[in-house]
Amino acid sequence: MKINTKPLPGMMELLPEEQIEFNRILNVIKKHHSQFGFVSIDTPIIERTETLLAKAGGETEKQIYRFKKGDNDLSLRFDLTVPTARYTANNLGQLLFPFKRSQIGKVYRGERAQRGRFREFYQCDIDIICKEKMSVNYDAEVIAVIYSIFKELSFGDFTLRISNRNLISGIISGLKLGDKADEIMALIDRAEKITPTEFEDQANNLELGDKIEIIKKFINCRGDIDNVLIKLKDIANIINNEQFLLGINELEALGSTLLNMGVDAKNICFDMLIVRGLDYYTGTVFETSLNDFKQIGSIASGGRYDNLCGYYSKEKLMGVGASIGLTRLFWTLRELGLLNFNSKTTAKYLIMPMGKKELIKAYSIASEIRRKGKNVEVLLEPVNAKKAFKIADKKGVEFAMLIGEKELQDSIFKFKNMSTGEYVDMADI
Amino acid sequence: MKINTKPLPGMMELLPEEQIEFNRILNVIKKHHSQFGFVSIDTPIIERTETLLAKAGGETEKQIYRFKKGDNDLSLRFDLTVPTARYTANNLGQLLFPFKRSQIGKVYRGERAQRGRFREFYQCDIDIICKEKMSVNYDAEVIAVIYSIFKELSFGDFTLRISNRNLISGIISGLKLGDKADEIMALIDRAEKITPTEFEDQANNLELGDKIEIIKKFINCRGDIDNVLIKLKDIANIINNEQFLLGINELEALGSTLLNMGVDAKNICFDMLIVRGLDYYTGTVFETSLNDFKQIGSIASGGRYDNLCGYYSKEKLMGVGASIGLTRLFWTLRELGLLNFNSKTTAKYLIMPMGKKELIKAYSIASEIRRKGKNVEVLLEPVNAKKAFKIADKKGVEFAMLIGEKELQDSIFKFKNMSTGEYVDMADI
Repeated sequence: MKINTKPLPGMMELLPEEQIEFNRILNVIKKHHSQFGFVSIDTPIIERTETLLAKAGGETEKQIYRFKKGDNDLSLRFDLTVPTARYTANNLGQLLFPFKRSQIGKVYRGERAQRGRFREFYQCDIDIICKEKMSVNYDAEVIAVIYSIFKELSFGDFTLRISNRNLISGIISGLKLGDKADEIMALIDRAEKITPTEFEDQANNLELGDKIEIIKKFINCRGDIDNVLIKLKDIANIINNEQFLLGINELEALGSTLLNMGVDAKNICFDMLIVRGLDYYTGTVFETSLNDFKQIGSIASGGRYDNLCGYYSKEKLMGVGASIGLTRLFWTLRELGLLNFNSKTTAKYLIMPMGKKELIKAYSIASEIRRKGKNVEVLLEPVNAKKAFKIADKKGVEFAMLIGEKELQDSIFKFKNMSTGEYVDMADI
Repeated sequence: MKINTKPLPGMMELLPEEQIEFNRILNVIKKHHSQFGFVSIDTPIIERTETLLAKAGGETEKQIYRFKKGDNDLSLRFDLTVPTARYTANNLGQLLFPFKRSQIGKVYRGERAQRGRFREFYQCDIDIICKEKMSVNYDAEVIAVIYSIFKELSFGDFTLRISNRNLISGIISGLKLGDKADEIMALIDRAEKITPTEFEDQANNLELGDKIEIIKKFINCRGDIDNVLIKLKDIANIINNEQFLLGINELEALGSTLLNMGVDAKNICFDMLIVRGLDYYTGTVFETSLNDFKQIGSIASGGRYDNLCGYYSKEKLMGVGASIGLTRLFWTLRELGLLNFNSKTTAKYLIMPMGKKELIKAYSIASEIRRKGKNVEVLLEPVNAKKAFKIADKKGVEFAMLIGEKELQDSIFKFKNMSTGEYVDMADI
């Protein structure tokens, strides 16, 4: 029987040169999580089904990978938020609050197989969890981490699109539209994915009368903080609602804190179209888009929530988080041709000995370079010069050193820069 | 219903301060993999059951996590070798050989729950896979990587215990004991776990007659390469077998190459008790033990094999690999009290502002420090001096800076070294 060697559909598996680029992106994300003092935690991929499904239902339940082992009803985690809530509830007495945690790992959803949809994928999450009241400074820090990550990653200009759920909730309550809250939020949530005519039709279906004009005015608030605040204050004068005013105050505080934290104003757009689905979030919400590739949707998003561990603990914990769906982001960038796969080795340097004595010298040069903290590979079988440089080319190393009898005799060991052809002394690396 | 918030039995879940130490060890392993030019690959945790069980059977099949999703018979991987074999077979035309791959990831075995036995655990593997004949230089490199890892990790003195399967196979064939090969290898494999009397009894049961004396002589060969070679050559004179001579030659070449690669002779012990189980390996085999904690067994092991992808490809690929079972290693070191959990944050520096204006200054100092590539945390709510240093203590940061009105006025911003009490200028970090 011929055994199928392909990975399962919906599971991304990369070639080494692609994996190197994937890992580079992953390491940038990790670095910025650490630079802000987030500690990483690592929860099991398998959980009790009752734990995972305590809150979930509907689509989640259908998509979950669920199985029995002995008498145990087990499932693979479908996100990192539920395991983090369980972890936090389980270790309440031993964690320091505010608890700033990073978690990067694979999650599983048995979605219908489809291009660009994954059944196993990486989520890269940060959250700050508090026991007491949290100011929007925490929201700002989470957004500042996302800003630093994408600034370093250089996938082109990007925009942090920010809103606050107190605003839309305040409008809905101020306009006494509470019975249609879900429909209104869902409509705003999909407003960018439908045509203006479709929007009008669907808005009319909601039978909001004149009130739709205020909602339209609201979702057209977009721009820098000063601009948006003026427009929002206009609306505040009409609807006169406390939650709406709270939203304005939080947005204003967030705007100035982001600037104080060094986030560039040109990367921030306050945008009332941002809702982030129906439930869960209660304050700040944000998404991130690449300016030149808006069609790919949000590449990092998150927000403020009120009650993380409701299903696991009596303690009321609030938090703010941000998530990057790395597998889908990587796939999308690769499809757009925005990634370079230049190297098939983690080594920057390659040493290529032409004989046995040269090999021994190669070992000692390699040790010296590794002691400097650099990555270097040695070809472990002697090669001739022509073949050697072909290998160096194929591997995509930046520097290659050929060691023959002459180099050994004269004790001259230099690396050739594979792009410029220039030679570099050992002392200079 | 109260929901159980504990992780499943047999699944390790660490507190932040433990996870920081776990990650430090993991990163040392990754660093040395990269420094030798191994590229990391990442295969799905879920595989087709037929793929995973192509070779396995017995215990493996009983322990596997297996389930259906739709019509698909799926399982969680129980090691990284089988997925790597599938990956290599699947990408044969696109990989560069020798293919030096690193894979670090979680694997799953539904063992009976028991202290120190894990159902989800990390393996940290490297392998070099070749299409053609491989010299023992490759074996040496894999061992050199393990050497560099444990040298940096500093868990005390350690010994690389090395043998070669051609030696014992040569003896068995030279003594015409082929029909008892498995039993003899299994006896040697467990020799250290049983008493000398038990060994004698079990050896007698095998009814090897005088031949047991040669086997005993063999398994007592232990020491540095010169010493062991003398003893092995004595045995060679008695049994006169080609495979045995091949084993001697390979051991000799490996010994000198390891020294050339900079592995310290004091960390190497050639030891004929090392067998590494019944099948799979065909040449070099090795284990690693901590000299002061021999009871914990091997902490890193591996060897040479002849046919990696037999079940997945017609191409005959040979290789040499090494594996560290990190979860168990970490658990054991923690049990022995050999690990320190000093810090609850990834940040080395903590900035503690006493008011709102001071907070704004804290943000800009933090940005400056992050630009230098360092990890720094800011307390996002103003605190008083007493509370501030208590927090710094609890978090276990190395340096903490309090910013009050005075510091702001005089523009003097210094970090206090939390262990020495000395103050450090911003310029010096």
